[in-house]
Formats: sequence, C-alpha cells, structure tokens
Amino acid sequence: MKPITRIEQSLAIALAAVEEPGCPPKLVAAVRHAVFPGGARIRPQLCLAVAQACGQDDPALTDAAAVAIELLHCASLVHDDLPCFDDAPTRRGRASVHWAFGQPLAVLAGDALIVMAFQTLAAAAGQSPLRLPGLMKIIADSVGMPSGIVAGQAWESESRVSLMQYQRAKTGSLFVAATCAGALSAGADPKAWQALGDCLGEAYQVADDIRDVMGQAELLGKPVGQDAQHARPNAIADLGLGGAIVHFESLITAAADSIPEGPSAAAMRQLVWQESERLVPRAACRQYQAQAQAQAQTAAAPVRLTTAA
Amino acid sequence: MKPITRIEQSLAIALAAVEEPGCPPKLVAAVRHAVFPGGARIRPQLCLAVAQACGQDDPALTDAAAVAIELLHCASLVHDDLPCFDDAPTRRGRASVHWAFGQPLAVLAGDALIVMAFQTLAAAAGQSPLRLPGLMKIIADSVGMPSGIVAGQAWESESRVSLMQYQRAKTGSLFVAATCAGALSAGADPKAWQALGDCLGEAYQVADDIRDVMGQAELLGKPVGQDAQHARPNAIADLGLGGAIVHFESLITAAADSIPEGPSAAAMRQLVWQESERLVPRAACRQYQAQAQAQAQTAAAPVRLTTAA
Repeated sequence: MKPITRIEQSLAIALAAVEEPGCPPKLVAAVRHAVFPGGARIRPQLCLAVAQACGQDDPALTDAAAVAIELLHCASLVHDDLPCFDDAPTRRGRASVHWAFGQPLAVLAGDALIVMAFQTLAAAAGQSPLRLPGLMKIIADSVGMPSGIVAGQAWESESRVSLMQYQRAKTGSLFVAATCAGALSAGADPKAWQALGDCLGEAYQVADDIRDVMGQAELLGKPVGQDAQHARPNAIADLGLGGAIVHFESLITAAADSIPEGPSAAAMRQLVWQESERLVPRAACRQYQAQAQAQAQTAAAPVRLTTAA
Repeated sequence: MKPITRIEQSLAIALAAVEEPGCPPKLVAAVRHAVFPGGARIRPQLCLAVAQACGQDDPALTDAAAVAIELLHCASLVHDDLPCFDDAPTRRGRASVHWAFGQPLAVLAGDALIVMAFQTLAAAAGQSPLRLPGLMKIIADSVGMPSGIVAGQAWESESRVSLMQYQRAKTGSLFVAATCAGALSAGADPKAWQALGDCLGEAYQVADDIRDVMGQAELLGKPVGQDAQHARPNAIADLGLGGAIVHFESLITAAADSIPEGPSAAAMRQLVWQESERLVPRAACRQYQAQAQAQAQTAAAPVRLTTAA
C-alpha cells in the first residue's frame, strides 16, 4: 500500500472511531472539513518513512503516531485561521473551518482534534505499551509549552521575537515529532532522527516564506502575502529572496546528510530531494527571479531616460 | 498533607515543568492566570478521594491524573469564556483570560492546557506504564468526541438538543473521568466508580443551574443569568426551581448509594454530603424560596385590589 493511502485510511479510521451517533453532527462535519481533503500529509509521510527505515515492528502504533501528528497539524491550522489570528477565509483551496461553520465550532473542532490525537495514540498502544509514555512526550511537547507549535504561535503576541526560536517552535517542532515518533514507534532511538526533523522543519518554513513572497497561491492553497500583511517574522525579511533560496538548499543538504546509515538510507535521501523539489520548484524560482529582474530593468529604464533628457 | 494542598502543589509542579525560559512570557502568564487561583478543585479532589479509597499504590500517577483533569477543566473555562461563546468578562471573581490577555492568547492558553494534561500524564507513567493507555482513554474521552466536554459545548450549536445528553457531556464527563481515573491510577477497576461520577456530575450541573437562577454571583464567581441570556438548555426551564432542588437531592442520594462498600465507604459518603451542601446551601435555598413567595404575594396583591374595585 502506498504511504499516502495508508495515511488517508488511518485518518478515516481515527475519525470514524469518535463519530458515534451521540456526537453533535455539526462538530463531526467541522472536524471532517478540517481533515479531509488534506494537503500533502508531509508530516505523517515522514513519520512512516522513518519507522520503515527503523524496521517498523508495530505498524498500528506507527499509524497512530502518524495520525496523531497530522490531527495536531490540522488543529493548528483551524485555530490559526480564526479571526483573532490570520482571519483566513480559505485553507487548502476552500473555505476555512470558521468560515464554513462559524467561530464556535472552529474553536471546538480544533480542541477535539488535539484530544483525538491522544485518543488515537492510547487506542494503539496494546502491542507495545512501554513505548507510549515516550511517544506521548515527543508528540505532546511538539505542540504544547515550552516550545511546541502553540508556543510558536504565541511568539506572535510578543514584541521581541527570535526568528529561529519562532519558526522552530511554530513549524519545526512537528517535523521533529514526525521523525522521532516514527523511530520510537518502531522501537528505535528517536535521538538519531532528530536532526532530520529539525532540518526539514526549518526548510519547510523557509519554503513557505519563499512561496508566500512568490505569490504562488495555488501551491500554498491559502492567501499569499500573509507574512507582510501580519508583520510576521519571516526568512525573506532577513535574507532577501535569493538568500532564502540558498538557505533552503543548504537545509535540504543538511537534512539528507543527517540520515543515519542503514539499508534504507539511500531511499530516504531520495525522498528528501523529491520533497525539496515539491516545496520549492526550481523552475518556478528561476522564472520568478527572471521576471523580477525584467521588472527591475523596465522600472529602471524611464528613470535613466529622464535623467538623460 | 490536605488534599487541596497536594493538588495545588501538583498543579504548580506541572506548570513549572513547561515554563522554561524559551517559552513566550505572555503565554506563560495567561496559562498561570487560567489555573491560579483556582476554584474548589472539586474534580481533582474527587480523583484523589477515589484513589485513596482504592488503596492508592502510585501517588505520583494519581496526582498526574488529578492534575490532568483540572487542567482540562481550566482549558474548557478559558475557551467557554471567549467572545464567540459566553463572552464572559469575569471568571472566578476576576478578569477572564481573554479579557486580561486578549483572544489570541486565550485560544492558545486553552490549547496549551489541553496538551499539558497529556504531558503531565506521560511524565508520571514511570512506575505503572501499563495503566497509561487506560488512563489516557478515560481522560481524553471525557474531553473529546463523541461525548466529552467539547462535544457538550458543541451541542449549543445544534437546533435540537437533549438536556441530559448536553449536560452529561458538558459537565458530567469530567466527573466520570475524575472517579474512574482515580480508581485506575490506583490499579482498581474504574467501572465500579462510574456511577459516582455520573451522579455527582449531573448534580453539579443542576446545582449550577440553580445558582444561576438564584443569582448567587458570589458563589459562582461569574456572571449570573447566563443560561437564560444565551438560551442554553438547563434544568430550571424543564423542572422549575423547586423541581430542580428535589432532583439535585435525589442525585446526591444516588451518588452516596453508588459508593462501593469498603473501609473508606463511610468517609466517601460524608464527603458527598459535604460537597452537596457546598454546592447548594440549603439555607440559601430556603431564603430564596421565601423571598420568591413574598414577591409573588406582593405582586398579586394589587391585582386582587384592582379586580375588587
């Protein structure tokens, strides 16, 4: 079974497990809207790939870890889109949850998704219960305080923010959880896989910043220019677009280099390079940079003519 | 150590564990505001009392279960007070979290508290890891879908609601978690303690409805008349005040009767009766009913005179 099929099936099973007739129907619909159809499911894919590389002896637990991480990601999107944060009318190319169901159900759907992540984990611990405390810690720490995605989002309410601390918490933490939980779900040492999550998480955030500036709304599935509009810290403001692309490529190299040696190392490296091309298509970058250069020349031309006249 | 002291200390330790220097300071302050000073801490007290009655062989795990339940309760209060729900400016006699810190930090503080409940549980599972999956299920189910407090709150967005289903989910579920998690944290069968949580949870909700009508803001620590204002289902609308008081008393009797026989049964029953008097002081009920009767007579008097004239 392809990893993406396995993830979609596991998510469907996790949702079905809590959708009993006694559950308020609008909450069920709002939660479904938040989870399906999904994006690239990059975090659970990463979790599965690492578990596979580590010998994956408890696939049900690996599935639960991957699902928990994706549900927490979906929860963060639902709450981030709320009017008091991004006030985003769209997400993944259609109405955001609060736009479709109203704010009360959006707050509650986010809460329910956070809890569902832990319901899913608890239900899958039958075969390897001794792995559960560690898995819970990895996954919960990546979302909560002091440095999970909730803390990352909270940095936006502070007047002084370190870009690295902000991005590592807001985006990187869930990537680290994906690699580390993947390893631990297979009984392997999570520490060996932390650097991969760290590098990919930062690369993903830089890629998001690059695409936000390049205006590729169709790739993002949400409105562009949001960072500038909300005065959020981002890599472009610090490095410029060219510098951000160079930084992105160095992070991808570091990610590939961090992969522990083993029978699956080459395949994992291939996955990292593929994902890098999906995140920041090199052709689109070249096209954007050429357009920007042309615009700069056109804009500069009249100035020179006027000066000459 | 008195149970309330033990609970306050455990809560302080749980918060300190996530308050590292790298955590955004306003989020830390908002979370502290949500947890301290607390209310009566009735749910964690119940958890501790049941664990004690069951022989309590892993006090650290019992503490973690009690803390997790109280943190989830605090999270639900923070989110319930948001402008899109109750829009409550006060809670426990002072500013609500969104009033003091703004909506973004209130949403995030609630999220962080939910996650912290599971961080706390995971960290305490060292001695009895095999109890963790069951404890997580009890506690997560009491908050999430299909019938935890999040589902209870979501019933307010539906046009057709069963009062019992609504109240059982919104309030009862966390009481059931308190008794069942208390038992399981001590290695006992949680099922034997479910009826106690069920009855006390419903009694607590009916008491809240009674006090909401009787206007005892100082007992509630929040604005009164909220159910009528938000057209929420409540026991008074169904039963009238007198009927609600009778119902409350029958629930307390059922709670006391449900306590499994054992060396601590008498003490547990005593606790239930004490709690009942704290929830609905009989003197206040009598005073309110006498006032209501007097007002009805005064209001009726001129009508009779007018008719006679």
